[in-house]
Amino acid sequence: MAHVRLTLTMASGARIGPGKAELLESVRASGSISAAARAMGMDYKRAWLLMDSLNRAFATPAVERVTGGPGGGGAVLTPFGEELLARYRRIEAAAARMAEADLEALEHQAAPDPGPKV
Amino acid sequence: MAHVRLTLTMASGARIGPGKAELLESVRASGSISAAARAMGMDYKRAWLLMDSLNRAFATPAVERVTGGPGGGGAVLTPFGEELLARYRRIEAAAARMAEADLEALEHQAAPDPGPKV
Repeated sequence: MAHVRLTLTMASGARIGPGKAELLESVRASGSISAAARAMGMDYKRAWLLMDSLNRAFATPAVERVTGGPGGGGAVLTPFGEELLARYRRIEAAAARMAEADLEALEHQAAPDPGPKV
Repeated sequence: MAHVRLTLTMASGARIGPGKAELLESVRASGSISAAARAMGMDYKRAWLLMDSLNRAFATPAVERVTGGPGGGGAVLTPFGEELLARYRRIEAAAARMAEADLEALEHQAAPDPGPKV
C-alpha cells in the first residue's frame, strides 16, 4: 500500500521519525532497550544510540532506565516519551488520512516495476 | 524552526520526498537537470539518477528531455511531473499546518543543544 512517511525535525536538528517511534513502542512493549532492539532486528548499540539521541534532544528524557523488579531492571517510557510518541502518531495518522486520495490517484499511475530505488 | 519532513511511498517502493520535490522545482526553474543540480549543489549524476528513478516509478515520465531552442535543449516537467509535485506540496503543506501546535509544544521542550544526531 502507498503510504506517508513522516519525520518531525526540531529547530535544533533533533528529529523523530518512523524508526524512533517504532523503537519507543517496542521499548514500551518489551520493557527494555535490548529486548526492543531484538524484536526489531536492530543491534543493541544502534537502538541505544537512537534512544540516547532522543533523550538528549529534549529537556526531559523520553526513555529511562529502571532497576530491580523480576527481570532485573530495564527501560520504560517517561510521561514525556508517551507524549512525544502520541504526538508523532497523531500527526502521522492525520497526514495519512489527508494524503489518502492523492496517494490513491498516484498509485493508479505507478509503474508495475519501477526498477532500482534511488 | 521545527518542521515536518514527508515522503510518499508507493506500493512498489517508489518514493518522492523533499529532495526529489526540490529537484523537480529546480528543473522547472532552470530548464535542465544539470543546471538544477548545480543550483542545489548536487552532482549531476545523482540528480540524473533521482529523476530517472522518478520517471521509472510511474507509467508517465515526470521530467522529459527537450531538444533545440536557444539553450540547445534541456529538461522540462511533464504535466504528470507538475501533478506529482503539486500533490506532494499540497500534502506537505497540509501536514505542516496540522502539526503546527504539536511541533510548537515539542519545541518548547527541546534541549538547547541536543548533541550529535543519530
